[in-house]
Amino acid sequence: MTTEAFSFSLLATDGMARRGEVKTPHGLVRTPAFMPVGTQATVKAMYPEQVRELGADVVLGNTYHLMLRPTAERVARLGGLHTFMNWQHTILTDSGGFQVMSLAQIRKLSEKGVTFQSHIDGSRHEMTPERSIEIQGLLGSDIQMQLDECLRLPAERKEVERAMQLSLRWAERSRAQFEKMGGPGKGRGLYGIVQGGDVADLRVASAQALSQMPFEGYSIGGLAVGEPQDVMLRMLEITTPVLPTTKPRYLMGVGTPDDIVESVARGVDMFDCVMPTRAGRHGLAYTRFGKINLKNARHADDPRPLDEESSCPGARTYSRAYLHHLIRAGEGLGGMLLTWNNLAYYQSMMQGIRDAIEAGRFADFKAEVKEGWAKGDLPALG
Amino acid sequence: MTTEAFSFSLLATDGMARRGEVKTPHGLVRTPAFMPVGTQATVKAMYPEQVRELGADVVLGNTYHLMLRPTAERVARLGGLHTFMNWQHTILTDSGGFQVMSLAQIRKLSEKGVTFQSHIDGSRHEMTPERSIEIQGLLGSDIQMQLDECLRLPAERKEVERAMQLSLRWAERSRAQFEKMGGPGKGRGLYGIVQGGDVADLRVASAQALSQMPFEGYSIGGLAVGEPQDVMLRMLEITTPVLPTTKPRYLMGVGTPDDIVESVARGVDMFDCVMPTRAGRHGLAYTRFGKINLKNARHADDPRPLDEESSCPGARTYSRAYLHHLIRAGEGLGGMLLTWNNLAYYQSMMQGIRDAIEAGRFADFKAEVKEGWAKGDLPALG
Repeated sequence: MTTEAFSFSLLATDGMARRGEVKTPHGLVRTPAFMPVGTQATVKAMYPEQVRELGADVVLGNTYHLMLRPTAERVARLGGLHTFMNWQHTILTDSGGFQVMSLAQIRKLSEKGVTFQSHIDGSRHEMTPERSIEIQGLLGSDIQMQLDECLRLPAERKEVERAMQLSLRWAERSRAQFEKMGGPGKGRGLYGIVQGGDVADLRVASAQALSQMPFEGYSIGGLAVGEPQDVMLRMLEITTPVLPTTKPRYLMGVGTPDDIVESVARGVDMFDCVMPTRAGRHGLAYTRFGKINLKNARHADDPRPLDEESSCPGARTYSRAYLHHLIRAGEGLGGMLLTWNNLAYYQSMMQGIRDAIEAGRFADFKAEVKEGWAKGDLPALG
Repeated sequence: MTTEAFSFSLLATDGMARRGEVKTPHGLVRTPAFMPVGTQATVKAMYPEQVRELGADVVLGNTYHLMLRPTAERVARLGGLHTFMNWQHTILTDSGGFQVMSLAQIRKLSEKGVTFQSHIDGSRHEMTPERSIEIQGLLGSDIQMQLDECLRLPAERKEVERAMQLSLRWAERSRAQFEKMGGPGKGRGLYGIVQGGDVADLRVASAQALSQMPFEGYSIGGLAVGEPQDVMLRMLEITTPVLPTTKPRYLMGVGTPDDIVESVARGVDMFDCVMPTRAGRHGLAYTRFGKINLKNARHADDPRPLDEESSCPGARTYSRAYLHHLIRAGEGLGGMLLTWNNLAYYQSMMQGIRDAIEAGRFADFKAEVKEGWAKGDLPALG
């Protein structure tokens, strides 16, 4: 069996904004793309068919969570992550490094990798660049990430530089392991991850060094970790011009709708974020008119839907009064409907972004969506 | 506008088992019927469209919960419970009495009614037969219940008799209020509730007295409250023959699949129970082969679906290993899929019951489903 190579096609550009297509063993990913987060092999509170119907071409799985439960070996025995979670489209996995540093207990970093204890049962594990790639291969991930070290900001320049240099050495080791496991031959891709915190010259150095390595794509890590939005955007402005135009660029863990349109304007192609799913379970709705907190008492008697023009039943069919009731009563359907609404809004925004770039009117589109958010929610009736 | 009268048609009988049809302002209810429980205006972890697609003609709403939150007056302002919860089919409501006695704090019973404090915020409320019917009318319920007093078993005969007699006096008052609110003219029905605990002559006396009152249907309450199944079935055997054959009979809060087929065999037409929904959220699956506990480690590597012959994706599409993972990981999708499976199994069983009665082979059907449950789950592979 011949598997076609992983590829990226640039279909159109509009300023720095790019409209493209990533080809993986599980289909085409239209970019700019938003990837719903499926941490534990499920996009929380959603059936996979719903996620697909909203227009998602790819979901993200978390290596750290999956290696601990149900374990990568078990997923492999069961036919891989696509079959396990009933998602026969593209899957991107992170390296596990970010969660090891943020969730695991008693972690110890060395040149070799990180040892840590599971947050679930305290069991001891070792994560190295090689092991991360091995796990991602067992999961059957189409788009894999090198292991890196991601610092929280603010951090000292010296510390940022050390972590960035370590990440470059881990990039080499990750790549070697990916080749050894036949990743490219299976049509899979491995992305290198740009680090460098909020230090401009370190970001450039990281991006330049990675560009010399044969990755299928480039991630921008270590942003949206506590710094102001303008810092993040400045880092993008100096990073994306250094990256090869022929490869997709993925801004990890970002972000709000505003973060996304601003990052697309700076040449980013792929995004993932827990916001639409997490916020949904907590009663927050993303809409054309900005964010709406359904917990607020002003919705208790409001018969209007979230957005009657939406094609998503979660947004169109149920009253705000009902959503308010469900969230207040702690009913699962509240999170199901708001997550549905939020992912629908994110995916429709991505479609709008893609259409606008193709039509050469991305700047206008960006201004229009911002105007909608600024307008805010319509006042309650009565 | 003329609304047709609430009606019950007996289409076929097979022994004591009855195949019928209840007509309400929101459609036909095929009996024997199982009513999924939608306590707080939602069948937990299910979209209403799914509930309908599984074959449910009616869902149950809990008056106690809804009167406290979002309140009956608010639901009425928002267009009634059908619109509020996006269920344009029949809704049955209980009287609230059972939950007042089991959930509320500091309750005080008198001839007039019950005063109690909300389990949500401690606020004081009064529930009388008149207020219960008023609330059910505000909700827009198609099938309403008289207020009654439901005792837990075992209980002394004297106490059982007192509660039964009180319930009869409340039946009269409930009926008067229902007439006053124009219930019959709106095509709605009010059911009287047979009480009498596990005391045969009190059950008969209750059923006889209620049969003299003009109810659209008869509920059998105060069973499945701690007594063995054979006691419950004996009570049914002496109760249903006393009730008018021309009215539907509803066994409240029952039950397991076995309880249901045995009760149908004794002349019951309608059922409700939280088991399929609650069990689903706790990792238990109802299937043709009995109950399966997905938490059990034996499922961790099992690639088989729950039931590949089921028409429900929750039963057919996902492996037991995946369901096991979701439940262990506390993922909402686990409860969503298992609830879906369980309600699908219950509704397919009801369809089987209805078909069997029409075909005059209900006894055979009962033997067959029991054989399946007794066979138990297939052993794991490997």
